[in-house]
Amino acid sequence: MNAEIIAVGTELLLGQIVNTNAAFLSQQLATLGIDVYHQVVVGDNPTRLKEVIKIAEQRSDLLILTGGLGPTKDDLTKQVLAEHLNKELVLDSETMANITDYHKKMNRTMTENNRMQALVIEGAMVLKNPNGLAAGMFIKHNEQTYLLFPGPPHELKAMFVQEAKPILLSYADKEDVLMSRVMRFFGIGESRLVTLLDDLIETQTNPTLASYAGVNEVSVRLTANGRTETDCQKLLDDLEGKIQDRVGDYLYGYGEETRLVEVVGELIKKQQLTLTAAESLTGGAFQSMLTTTAGVSEYFEGGVVTYSNRIKEDILGVSKETIEQYGVVSAHCAIEMAQCVKNQFGTDIGVSFTGVAGPAELEGQKSGTVWIGYAFKDTVSYAKCFHFGKGRNSNREQAVLSALDMIRRELLGKPIEGKTYLKD
Amino acid sequence: MNAEIIAVGTELLLGQIVNTNAAFLSQQLATLGIDVYHQVVVGDNPTRLKEVIKIAEQRSDLLILTGGLGPTKDDLTKQVLAEHLNKELVLDSETMANITDYHKKMNRTMTENNRMQALVIEGAMVLKNPNGLAAGMFIKHNEQTYLLFPGPPHELKAMFVQEAKPILLSYADKEDVLMSRVMRFFGIGESRLVTLLDDLIETQTNPTLASYAGVNEVSVRLTANGRTETDCQKLLDDLEGKIQDRVGDYLYGYGEETRLVEVVGELIKKQQLTLTAAESLTGGAFQSMLTTTAGVSEYFEGGVVTYSNRIKEDILGVSKETIEQYGVVSAHCAIEMAQCVKNQFGTDIGVSFTGVAGPAELEGQKSGTVWIGYAFKDTVSYAKCFHFGKGRNSNREQAVLSALDMIRRELLGKPIEGKTYLKD
Repeated sequence: MNAEIIAVGTELLLGQIVNTNAAFLSQQLATLGIDVYHQVVVGDNPTRLKEVIKIAEQRSDLLILTGGLGPTKDDLTKQVLAEHLNKELVLDSETMANITDYHKKMNRTMTENNRMQALVIEGAMVLKNPNGLAAGMFIKHNEQTYLLFPGPPHELKAMFVQEAKPILLSYADKEDVLMSRVMRFFGIGESRLVTLLDDLIETQTNPTLASYAGVNEVSVRLTANGRTETDCQKLLDDLEGKIQDRVGDYLYGYGEETRLVEVVGELIKKQQLTLTAAESLTGGAFQSMLTTTAGVSEYFEGGVVTYSNRIKEDILGVSKETIEQYGVVSAHCAIEMAQCVKNQFGTDIGVSFTGVAGPAELEGQKSGTVWIGYAFKDTVSYAKCFHFGKGRNSNREQAVLSALDMIRRELLGKPIEGKTYLKD
Repeated sequence: MNAEIIAVGTELLLGQIVNTNAAFLSQQLATLGIDVYHQVVVGDNPTRLKEVIKIAEQRSDLLILTGGLGPTKDDLTKQVLAEHLNKELVLDSETMANITDYHKKMNRTMTENNRMQALVIEGAMVLKNPNGLAAGMFIKHNEQTYLLFPGPPHELKAMFVQEAKPILLSYADKEDVLMSRVMRFFGIGESRLVTLLDDLIETQTNPTLASYAGVNEVSVRLTANGRTETDCQKLLDDLEGKIQDRVGDYLYGYGEETRLVEVVGELIKKQQLTLTAAESLTGGAFQSMLTTTAGVSEYFEGGVVTYSNRIKEDILGVSKETIEQYGVVSAHCAIEMAQCVKNQFGTDIGVSFTGVAGPAELEGQKSGTVWIGYAFKDTVSYAKCFHFGKGRNSNREQAVLSALDMIRRELLGKPIEGKTYLKD
């Protein structure tokens, strides 16, 4: 069975609202094993809506129409579909009672428009609306199935889950289980990742394997289909093993919503360490990122933003000589910043950021040149140079994530390339 | 001219991402006077994509394809369109140079897939990608116009505004001039704003008037149609006057891309002042926001993140007695933080943030309770209490923006309600 989602509403075509209903329904249908091959948006125009329905009938088994069931003049979805299917609109007494009841409760006068909302297409199974007045509909006609939902997301969601899903479940193949696993990577581009996984992607059948480029990171989704959860888990484990062999070094976590900062925060807490930072070009973005996670106070008490040279010297205590001799875009400055802030704030780890956010050059160095310093207790201190160079804010974001990944690798004892140490 | 937006990507059909590109493009096209009658989403499937293109050609003049220009095997938009139009893919040397350059800078190995990204449809005008590697395309063929954009929203947006919009503008009806003005508001919700502008919105014809709710702010777009620019300006000025009368107090700036932080930064620079901050619950987000703008070093040299009480006392110098007597979620603490950081960093203005980010309560105060402190030279110091309470990161963002708006009002001598001063 394949489905097509048709959203009706001029406000979507004007970009006044985003079609989150399509995403919600697509997710739900995927878990039911129903393929969605097309999503369409059309305005409140009867001719164009009818054309869209005709095209959909030629390529899809299940047509899901959203929106256009309200009480205003431009709500015409059920009218157009009824005419197209050669059916009448009939009064649904339960919906009517519901509407009357609502107006009585709210002490509002009912209008003719409200009565219109109680009309349904003859022969339809009526879907109740737990959060509103417009009724939904489930219709079988010839080879096709039609589902009609109201447009407001909270009405649609509740109606789908409570009324439509049980009906669709009875259509789904009950023998199959569908399970997904998302693996998240940092420090490798999508093109390199898919090149390294090329044959796995090419020969994929079950599990399927797809890559997604996020902002400064990549994830892959493995989806297995099997008789039982155990079967699915085994299929996912096998494929994950192959992926780990090739790009496991870049894997930092699992799951749709997991962020690098959370993974690193958990590691720091687990090892009972504390952390601080001195930020120049990132201007507080690293510390701000840390504090987006609840419970950060277990390992982070504060830090400093040292944007100018004066503040680096006077407040943080970087020596004037270091800045004069090596400049601020240097390993020397980064390491001294990390050490100073660690000592000042009394933590185990000190991280620092210094470099050229851009757009202008600094000390003859190109925009995107960033030194990240790392100091651990009294035992380790080094810096690493990065060349980002894709615009001021992208540089800052990449610097923050690169530092998080450096800490992750340090705490897990994983290799880090390009460390610069200073001679005594 | 009417347009159809075709988004290509299986991740949309699985509901893993929401089609925000369609909303963005629709908004933009509306301002250009180009009608969008259909939006379609289709997966990474060449047969179905070709069918969708054929249907679109029968009903739309301008086909806008988004997504599927990346380096992976399932990126096939330009291949399918080239085949459909009977055209070859040819190497674009400028795009190729850009890709080579990027890999050199990032010290990453280039793959055959990356080379694929430099291929464009023969005869296409190439649209540069300010935020990524994939080139866009503008193609005229027979009666149709085709625009190809990459899928990642930040790439698509920049490419549309910088590269495609100027081309489309030249297609607009040349006898008429279309001019837009975007007014940006902070501190008022969209529903209140549209209620206050209700009659202006209801009776709109020329200029048209539409409101858009952004993250923690609202904007309205006025679009006038006239014979000359002067005619349009006059229409816009008249309507703006009416809007100013009702909600002018909340207006902070103009323009599609203008941000509150930029407006405030320019004000501070103009008055030749300097600024610093001490941040507790915002954890550096305020300073990070400041430093997203280039040229910030003219008025900002650094500041401090004082997440724990120990750091507030030991590093910033807030007195132990203040914290013991009033707690950190207090006007006393906020004012002392602002004064301390101003003195320590030697600036004209000191701003501070202390409160409850959530989700847990603090000192018996609810999540979302935030005190923002303000100290100006030796003359003014006060704090203001906010109650946000809509989730940890929303609280932080609102605190940052509210502080910016406080500074803006201070520097413009506009009224600020709810100032709390301390008695000596």
